[in-house]
Amino acid sequence: MKRANGKSHKGPRFSYAGLDRVIHERARLSMLTSLMSHPAGLSFAELKTLCALTDGNLSRHLQVLESERLVASARTIERNRPLTRCRITPLGRKRYLQYVDVLEHVVHDATQAIKGHDRTTADPLPRRVFAS
Amino acid sequence: MKRANGKSHKGPRFSYAGLDRVIHERARLSMLTSLMSHPAGLSFAELKTLCALTDGNLSRHLQVLESERLVASARTIERNRPLTRCRITPLGRKRYLQYVDVLEHVVHDATQAIKGHDRTTADPLPRRVFAS
Repeated sequence: MKRANGKSHKGPRFSYAGLDRVIHERARLSMLTSLMSHPAGLSFAELKTLCALTDGNLSRHLQVLESERLVASARTIERNRPLTRCRITPLGRKRYLQYVDVLEHVVHDATQAIKGHDRTTADPLPRRVFAS
Repeated sequence: MKRANGKSHKGPRFSYAGLDRVIHERARLSMLTSLMSHPAGLSFAELKTLCALTDGNLSRHLQVLESERLVASARTIERNRPLTRCRITPLGRKRYLQYVDVLEHVVHDATQAIKGHDRTTADPLPRRVFAS
């Protein structure tokens, strides 16, 4: 198969195998980006607000991230109230960096595709066959 | 809530509500990027190769994209063999562009977070509390 620019594809050009499913899920991507932005950690309530998640969703996704050892949480008592504070682990940071590398690659491909699409769709197309 | 730089957050800073779940799923993101890169359409076999998907997975995700009217496929006969050719629809293109806008925003936030994280983790951290 040839690309529009005439270069051959090597392997699955758009498979994005490195797009780690644990991190790619929207809520978890949101949580990890929040935690990367706050390396000193965030409380359960702060994470909930930053990511616009419900208690149930936050708990569920936190459990996934903890079981993968990407996030660590510690329960403490502050002003007589229980407080859960979460932090990204060194492994979480490593996996996040790898994921963002692939994400940058996707955005690059998407940008190229959009440019090419803009050029090509100026031509008449067989709209009879491809109904939208 | 204050960020590390002292600026207040406005709303859910990292929620990425615009990260369209239909497009965000890895296989579908892969398929749509392939189709954006090939506006004249791709056969089932070409899509399968470009995205490294099995017949079953490709069919399943194609069905989702077609039911959302983001992709249109047409079955034709070429050299006595049935051939399914897929193309991104104008609606698909519009939704893909919106999605990529948000994805660029995620990559921007991630890059900023990584920079900030690199600076902060140079300081000693309470590793007793946060085991990795």
